[in-house]
Amino acid sequence: MSVGKNVQRQDAVAKVTGRARYTEDLPMSGMKHAVYVRSTIAHGIVKSINFDKAKGVKGVRAVFTYEDVPDIFHATAGHPYAYNREQKDVEDRLLLTKHVRFEGDEIAVIVADSEMIARKAARLVEVEYEELEPLITPENILREDAPKIHDTGNIVGAHSFEVGGSLDDATDSSDYIAEGDYKTAMVQHCHLENHVAYAYMEDNDTITVVSSTQIPHIARRIISEALEFPLGRVKVVKPYIGGGFGSKQDTVLEPMVAFLTTKLGGKPVQMNLTREECLSCSRTRHPFYGHVRAGADKDGRLTFLDVDAVSLTGAYASHGHAIISAGSAKSCAMYPRSVIKVNAKTVYSNMPVAGAMRAYGTPQIVFMVENAVEELAANAGIDPLEFRLKNVGVPGDINPLKKSPMLSHGLKECLEKGRELFDWDRKRKEYKAYKKGSVRKGIGVACFSYASGTYPGNVEIAGARAVLNQDGSVHIQVGATEIGQGSDTAFAQMAAESSGIDVGMIKVISTQDTDFSPFDTGAYASRQTYVTGQAVHKAALEFRGKILNYAEDLTGVIESRLMIDGDRIVYTTRPDVTVVTMKELAIHSYYHKDLGGQISAEVSYKTRTNALSFGCTFVDIDIDIELCKVKINDIINIHDSGRIINPLLAEGQVHGGMAMSIGAALSEELLIDEKSGRVYNNSLLDYKIPTMMDIPDMRCGFVETEEPTAGYGNKSLGEPPIISPAPALRNAILDATGVAVSSLPMSPKSLYVEFTKAGLI
Amino acid sequence: MSVGKNVQRQDAVAKVTGRARYTEDLPMSGMKHAVYVRSTIAHGIVKSINFDKAKGVKGVRAVFTYEDVPDIFHATAGHPYAYNREQKDVEDRLLLTKHVRFEGDEIAVIVADSEMIARKAARLVEVEYEELEPLITPENILREDAPKIHDTGNIVGAHSFEVGGSLDDATDSSDYIAEGDYKTAMVQHCHLENHVAYAYMEDNDTITVVSSTQIPHIARRIISEALEFPLGRVKVVKPYIGGGFGSKQDTVLEPMVAFLTTKLGGKPVQMNLTREECLSCSRTRHPFYGHVRAGADKDGRLTFLDVDAVSLTGAYASHGHAIISAGSAKSCAMYPRSVIKVNAKTVYSNMPVAGAMRAYGTPQIVFMVENAVEELAANAGIDPLEFRLKNVGVPGDINPLKKSPMLSHGLKECLEKGRELFDWDRKRKEYKAYKKGSVRKGIGVACFSYASGTYPGNVEIAGARAVLNQDGSVHIQVGATEIGQGSDTAFAQMAAESSGIDVGMIKVISTQDTDFSPFDTGAYASRQTYVTGQAVHKAALEFRGKILNYAEDLTGVIESRLMIDGDRIVYTTRPDVTVVTMKELAIHSYYHKDLGGQISAEVSYKTRTNALSFGCTFVDIDIDIELCKVKINDIINIHDSGRIINPLLAEGQVHGGMAMSIGAALSEELLIDEKSGRVYNNSLLDYKIPTMMDIPDMRCGFVETEEPTAGYGNKSLGEPPIISPAPALRNAILDATGVAVSSLPMSPKSLYVEFTKAGLI
Repeated sequence: MSVGKNVQRQDAVAKVTGRARYTEDLPMSGMKHAVYVRSTIAHGIVKSINFDKAKGVKGVRAVFTYEDVPDIFHATAGHPYAYNREQKDVEDRLLLTKHVRFEGDEIAVIVADSEMIARKAARLVEVEYEELEPLITPENILREDAPKIHDTGNIVGAHSFEVGGSLDDATDSSDYIAEGDYKTAMVQHCHLENHVAYAYMEDNDTITVVSSTQIPHIARRIISEALEFPLGRVKVVKPYIGGGFGSKQDTVLEPMVAFLTTKLGGKPVQMNLTREECLSCSRTRHPFYGHVRAGADKDGRLTFLDVDAVSLTGAYASHGHAIISAGSAKSCAMYPRSVIKVNAKTVYSNMPVAGAMRAYGTPQIVFMVENAVEELAANAGIDPLEFRLKNVGVPGDINPLKKSPMLSHGLKECLEKGRELFDWDRKRKEYKAYKKGSVRKGIGVACFSYASGTYPGNVEIAGARAVLNQDGSVHIQVGATEIGQGSDTAFAQMAAESSGIDVGMIKVISTQDTDFSPFDTGAYASRQTYVTGQAVHKAALEFRGKILNYAEDLTGVIESRLMIDGDRIVYTTRPDVTVVTMKELAIHSYYHKDLGGQISAEVSYKTRTNALSFGCTFVDIDIDIELCKVKINDIINIHDSGRIINPLLAEGQVHGGMAMSIGAALSEELLIDEKSGRVYNNSLLDYKIPTMMDIPDMRCGFVETEEPTAGYGNKSLGEPPIISPAPALRNAILDATGVAVSSLPMSPKSLYVEFTKAGLI
Repeated sequence: MSVGKNVQRQDAVAKVTGRARYTEDLPMSGMKHAVYVRSTIAHGIVKSINFDKAKGVKGVRAVFTYEDVPDIFHATAGHPYAYNREQKDVEDRLLLTKHVRFEGDEIAVIVADSEMIARKAARLVEVEYEELEPLITPENILREDAPKIHDTGNIVGAHSFEVGGSLDDATDSSDYIAEGDYKTAMVQHCHLENHVAYAYMEDNDTITVVSSTQIPHIARRIISEALEFPLGRVKVVKPYIGGGFGSKQDTVLEPMVAFLTTKLGGKPVQMNLTREECLSCSRTRHPFYGHVRAGADKDGRLTFLDVDAVSLTGAYASHGHAIISAGSAKSCAMYPRSVIKVNAKTVYSNMPVAGAMRAYGTPQIVFMVENAVEELAANAGIDPLEFRLKNVGVPGDINPLKKSPMLSHGLKECLEKGRELFDWDRKRKEYKAYKKGSVRKGIGVACFSYASGTYPGNVEIAGARAVLNQDGSVHIQVGATEIGQGSDTAFAQMAAESSGIDVGMIKVISTQDTDFSPFDTGAYASRQTYVTGQAVHKAALEFRGKILNYAEDLTGVIESRLMIDGDRIVYTTRPDVTVVTMKELAIHSYYHKDLGGQISAEVSYKTRTNALSFGCTFVDIDIDIELCKVKINDIINIHDSGRIINPLLAEGQVHGGMAMSIGAALSEELLIDEKSGRVYNNSLLDYKIPTMMDIPDMRCGFVETEEPTAGYGNKSLGEPPIISPAPALRNAILDATGVAVSSLPMSPKSLYVEFTKAGLI
């Protein structure tokens, strides 16, 4: 049994020894380097570009502008192809643009012998603009006379739904109503490894792109679409990758490097974004502006949630309306017995482009909803934890959107487990004494629901292939991508669990090459252990069957009496008796003259379920009123992610998510000047991502429900930990100070404003 | 229908544009370079090595000697693992040696920042030897008091067989007997791309080796054996490769670079042999010394062939006795109705190491046999062509060794076709007038038999995987290696033929990576179109079946009514009606929400047949007696290689083989000093490989028998063209001059000796 064990990461040694090779560690002879010439204004039309000085820099090899790129509007979001063409992503992007839509937009590209030369030349390019009004706030963006950011207008998408009954009836039957306006910030992924990609041709009609991407198989298709180049002739390779968090679920560089190599006779061309470019010119999290109403009856039953929200996607659609759409859908399972109404809109703005980011719109929606629920509980005079316990879903509740029963639903147990671990009741009582003075104490709770993958929004194929090596060890190939989250190790454990083979004998190939790797849409939507896990499950069972079948051929012992135990095949009834070792069987299958052949099993699987996962955060803070500074004394995330594959890796995921949420809650924000659209802080000096010193010790716990649709009872865990810490912190601040903060981040700067307004300072 | 067409090579553009990347074109950051310190004597024991000066060269990083390498005797030959351990290759090699056995033997290795530095340092190493007698000739090698080249003695292997009756009886019933002593030369492959390999570790327990190899999957096992490193943790990558001809069916560098990276903390280390090292320190063709007797009765029936031969494998066994063993077995099918006795021995010598080379011992045996047969026909007063026509095999003849009927046997037809194309009878008559004077005319013929693969000597697994891309195009993955021979193109044609898919939509992945590529033993023994072709055949049929089955799911048209025609699926009865395009089907299979998944088919197949191929050479020469120079007026190879997959590529193979045989016949020889064992001419200035100017226009023809055991009626063609030109040339010289030359090469230098002896000069 391997699932449930703290198996060491497959890539641990490669990474800690520095031997793992990332995209930038793979040089090519004759490599050229390209950098973008970026817009210095947030909105306008380029009138002229002067390359005279730039071309004078020694080592500059070529220059391309919006006049040189194909006139093909394409989408960059890392989504599967939309078989239903109404679902397709907005095709609003050209490789380079004359109409610049944010500070940093891509006007031209300079190719040189080194990145340093290209950057030097780029700085010497002189661009004249016809300036247009930058649109930053929803009011301005939606103004009737606002300039159009795109020809199609400023609205990317909109949708609404009302489920669980009539909102009007629910409003009528409510004894308490709370409402508020909320706003979340534009934050950035800050993956360790910046965006980097290179491309070359080995032929006239084959492009290879090597990229730090979460989605090699999807990137292949997007490159093909953006260049109208035959898809079968594009190859995408994903080496080791240093994080993505959704930013690399987008083709930020791949189509451009592919285009450049076609222009340069197949020469290798690399693009490497700086940290500054990553911060403001790759992708960000969509800021949401929302108004939420929530109602409860006198019994403390949550009668309705009414969410009205606008999502700002920035200059280009990228994942666009899918973000708020998924975020609102995935969070519906928290309180499934209430009427839920959502009215959502996504709009362009003259800000950096927003795309996918860990938990994909859900943190924004949950922040708003859990704020309103908190106020509502207070209005109803009920302990906020009690209020949630009464209203959260339970197994068998109907999924409001899918109308099907939720087979596992551990949210209530999570809250109960957290209550105990956190000692909620004691703190609730004791901290009443600390609501005055300079340093106050407060506790907060918030919960969330999420999903495992995107079905039925998208089709998710996962592929897994198991191969028996000549020495009896096993290689597993997947198209799913290890991006730091530990999925390869989880897959190895799964394969071991289903086959009986010792996990130490199983190696999951950690890099993907679309010429070889089974098709899989990649790492996003917390889908891999759930969706790819099912393919691994099926492939491992098929593989085990083939091995036992072959063992019968080899030994004469009937297959049904055999099982694999580590590195041996044994009798099911006498596991101490070795019928044949894996090594003997392997060498026989390869080299016996009459029997055998290489033993392998491959499964390409489409998931048609999407299990919901749940969880909550409890947080205990001190708040220094004068310094407007929050100190976290204790913070616990409790997760129902079904069965936990690897507790140590799971804990790592949870800690990582919590830290990102703490950052988003207390310090992180890409600051945009509302007048000029200028980005103030696209550097890690000024963009306040928390350091190790800013992050408290964190705790986590799991409620291991058994999800029946998953290969191993498991559900999503990659993204969920980022959802509930921020609203829990906000609710703790409310508890400590009585001040209901309504926007993120709750940095000292913004708390100063709030506390001043509330008369605390 | 694609088989039989002149489809353009899949790698044509990549290669002619220079975009194809070979091993040396793949740099790695931090790459170190290693070179061998080689023995300057042919036989002896190293007494001391002084690295003082070498280590003083700036940039030298490490030095390893025979004292540092593992004490693991291993075999380097690129053979499949011998499941029957008696068949295993001789394990006589250590990574570095104290007992040096040829001039160039590997004593130490120097690692430096660049190859130039390493070579400079290697030249400064001072080695003291205790010299031993170098053994070069069979007489010396087999002398009782000869020093032992290896502890096991100087004999590597020996075998004999007598088939088709009793040799004594056949001798008694013979009216004519011819006999002679023959010798073939040590020649070298001279592949365009020298031996090159590098290795690195991405982990503590994973070695990756990138190498110009014909046998990545076998190399993986040998590296594992040589280092006692887990096989599953070795990965071998084969990029584009510039020829091999058998020299790269051996692990010349792979175990050493793998060893070095383990010693250097996983750093990448490259070894790159110079042309000089390739010529005398990689592998050569085994020179054979033989005595052949042949008998005929008065009706011109060949009664027996009695071959006694010694093969010199040089300092190490490498492929060793397998060469003469295979060579004698494969040539038995020419004259299958005669008694055939073979007595063969392989011995060590203090000469460069011999290994596999195109046609693997058969050119040597056939040279001897076809010389003796020529003399025999002359003795019997029969036209040598008539004599052969009477005695060569016909379909249904029993394979003398395997005792099974030969299902296709086109040798007689080849001779007849050649007779006509060459105009044998007219020339035979007319050239009688040109047997005197300074310039004489002669014609010669010789034939051969060969095999397709090595079964039952070895087990040959071939793997093929077909994958439907999102755009309806197809990728084929094979473990078989394109090494310049055109196999990828043949596989694409085969897959097109069996599936109905347009060949332009099929791409065969040209590089192998043992982590991904299906297992296949690689390029050798002319096995790929025959053995791997069967795997491709089966995989393509299975793939076609899956596509049509899916087409039924998609369209409702029953599968049995459908077929694939190019890029469309059509009714079998109405090929003009498109039921669904491949592209539509592909996108549906990937992205339909309920049906589908990635469509692929994989086959791992073991061949249990080994079809015989045949052919002959006709050659017309002028010979200048005073200059001792042969001018080829016309040379034709006729081949029965079954059905021809791609006539243009087949012609290329034949021309290449003929040119190599002409070189071996007329000019090529690695010259070894018989006393010192010194190699005289290990450079392309002195080693006389023919240039374009030396090679005449060549013709070829095919007799397309239908081989029933092959996927496409095809048989081996890669190696066969090299077999019969040399003996045909020798027979033409005999015809022109009456001088029976008995050894190769028939260079002006050696003809001068022969002609003087014969009184012509």
